[in-house]
Amino acid sequence: SANVQQKITPWKIFPTDDESLLSKQLTLSNGKSREDGLIVVASLIDKAANLGGLCRTCEILGVSRLVISNKNFIENREFQSLSVTAHKWIPIDEVVRVEELEEYLISMKQLGYSVVGVEQTANSADLTKYDFAKRSILLLGNEREGIPVPLLKMVDECVAIPQLGTIRSFNVHVTGAVLIWEYSKQH
Amino acid sequence: SANVQQKITPWKIFPTDDESLLSKQLTLSNGKSREDGLIVVASLIDKAANLGGLCRTCEILGVSRLVISNKNFIENREFQSLSVTAHKWIPIDEVVRVEELEEYLISMKQLGYSVVGVEQTANSADLTKYDFAKRSILLLGNEREGIPVPLLKMVDECVAIPQLGTIRSFNVHVTGAVLIWEYSKQH
Repeated sequence: SANVQQKITPWKIFPTDDESLLSKQLTLSNGKSREDGLIVVASLIDKAANLGGLCRTCEILGVSRLVISNKNFIENREFQSLSVTAHKWIPIDEVVRVEELEEYLISMKQLGYSVVGVEQTANSADLTKYDFAKRSILLLGNEREGIPVPLLKMVDECVAIPQLGTIRSFNVHVTGAVLIWEYSKQH
Repeated sequence: SANVQQKITPWKIFPTDDESLLSKQLTLSNGKSREDGLIVVASLIDKAANLGGLCRTCEILGVSRLVISNKNFIENREFQSLSVTAHKWIPIDEVVRVEELEEYLISMKQLGYSVVGVEQTANSADLTKYDFAKRSILLLGNEREGIPVPLLKMVDECVAIPQLGTIRSFNVHVTGAVLIWEYSKQH
């Protein structure tokens, strides 16, 4: 059939002639290029509020690209209320959760990216001691399910924030913010 | 008149015999005491969602006490949905925004606390280089107005997160989370 799924290729993900990128803020206030940093993959996240908030945080901290499962989220009122226009200033890619994400990660690893899964596992590295590779991808988990096992097997390392209290886990936007902050201090 | 405002006194703020505290999680999973750390003052924050989220983050990161302007927030559905029961495990004090906050901060400074205002000012310290005193109070600003000038004059120092993008400021819960994270790494 001609109706096969298209391969995700680096040049599909990183178009060089995408006019929509022309309006993005690719030079950061510290003079560095936004394109030369962390990629945050939020395709597993379901809630528009978390995605909109994350978009705002990514924009401010100089994240290179934000990846979400469906660009329709950007039109969502709650997304926009929390993003406060951040989505206009940072490149946002669409990589569909189940179908394409695995292939996307493989593709990015071939480009030299290190995939960091944000998840509490028995072997998770402690964020207080973690050195991020310059070319890093932060894979955030779903609000309820975390990172599904097939994807967990693909990450280069899992990293977790040490938790001292009774509640078991942070809001995913907060977790993302703390990890992005740590990355941005290191690079 | 007998109807004068009561003074805020340390023993009013830190009751030794408050039964409601008995259910709180005062010993953290790292063996330290929750009582011996950071106090987060969120009395200037208006949105129940921000307060509930902050409560969750404070609980997990071992914050000593959370201060809000009105304990009725705890009954708010949105607060509870974001707090995910955190309010049951961390001491929460009520210090009314305008009337009592100034006096509360004076009182705490007399107890040796350093008041850190989370605000972007010309003289704000850069969070990447900031050393928190063990006895620190984090004063978070209002969502729209930030920290009002009279309170800004009372802080020992302002601290800000370096911002690289186009959007001007973080969500207050995210700002709080990143500063609490930095504190918790240092102490």
